[in-house]
Amino acid sequence: MELLKQRILQDGHIKPGNIIKVGSFLNHQMDITLLNQIGEEFRRRFASSNITKILTIEASGIGIATITAQHFGNIPVVFAKKSQSKNLDGELLVSRVQSYTRGTVFDIQVAHKFLSPTDEILIIDDFLARGQALLGLIDIVNQSGAKLAGCGIVIEKGFQDGGQIIREKGVRLESLAIIDSIENGIVHFG
Amino acid sequence: MELLKQRILQDGHIKPGNIIKVGSFLNHQMDITLLNQIGEEFRRRFASSNITKILTIEASGIGIATITAQHFGNIPVVFAKKSQSKNLDGELLVSRVQSYTRGTVFDIQVAHKFLSPTDEILIIDDFLARGQALLGLIDIVNQSGAKLAGCGIVIEKGFQDGGQIIREKGVRLESLAIIDSIENGIVHFG
Repeated sequence: MELLKQRILQDGHIKPGNIIKVGSFLNHQMDITLLNQIGEEFRRRFASSNITKILTIEASGIGIATITAQHFGNIPVVFAKKSQSKNLDGELLVSRVQSYTRGTVFDIQVAHKFLSPTDEILIIDDFLARGQALLGLIDIVNQSGAKLAGCGIVIEKGFQDGGQIIREKGVRLESLAIIDSIENGIVHFG
Repeated sequence: MELLKQRILQDGHIKPGNIIKVGSFLNHQMDITLLNQIGEEFRRRFASSNITKILTIEASGIGIATITAQHFGNIPVVFAKKSQSKNLDGELLVSRVQSYTRGTVFDIQVAHKFLSPTDEILIIDDFLARGQALLGLIDIVNQSGAKLAGCGIVIEKGFQDGGQIIREKGVRLESLAIIDSIENGIVHFG
């Protein structure tokens, strides 16, 4: 998605250690017009699927998923919780996720009643790096018996192994911008 | 907002202890059509303000804020982080928040560069109970020097003291549904 790549080059900040920050438009402050362009692009890529629901994970996936749902006819969005939540009740679908960044493991949870075998699910998230959160969401969809249409990711870090792991599982993965490398403060796309 | 009250009566679940769950349409699974009706109503109530930005807090405020922003001409949404985040950089605005539910205190954080004295801010959140998170968000707006237009809340628990505390500070507070009491599994609105 050319517009997104241009935006990353224009407004992304490269921090020491070649880490990229996109908090000015994607995951702290959100540019609603850009999110609609992203939603439209996900719709175009998954036009052949009969998606009934979007699944994402708190927190930064929620805004993207919510706007994207409008481009799929206002289908519901469910967001997985990263912690015990007073908003959850009934039977839960749970998957254990490893965070390499924080060196911890945590459970992600979704109320079972919101994912059913008659659903076709699109998973949406902002970033894909090691893919652990995405694997957890895929696991939850599989537990529910719903059909998985695929995963829509805004930015994939192509130099980490998450994308390869997900694609090798046979899951359809659509990443709107794949960063191949960040060297000396310069972003290179795949 | 009559439509919202009807939805709460229809799809809200009352759990033991007279606790209300609205996870089927508001804060776990989200009904996008309802969120747009909520956004439209916030727009109507704050039509006389020149709002430039929406501030909310992760996680359940994000979807509501994102959709609402479309009704204010696609203004940006900033969401406060509840924990140290790798997505934050630069100078931070921080406020300490007490959680009565969890018996803990935690810091909420916003990058200073996203709130400026030329902004007029609408704070959006899903629930208002004791008001501690909302007080933290108001504190952050005040620290930034931005003008606060007010707070838009989807569901206020009128039987807790948050609403009174916020209104006594002279902050404009618009709650779309105020629950006065929940008794024997029956919700009564104000």
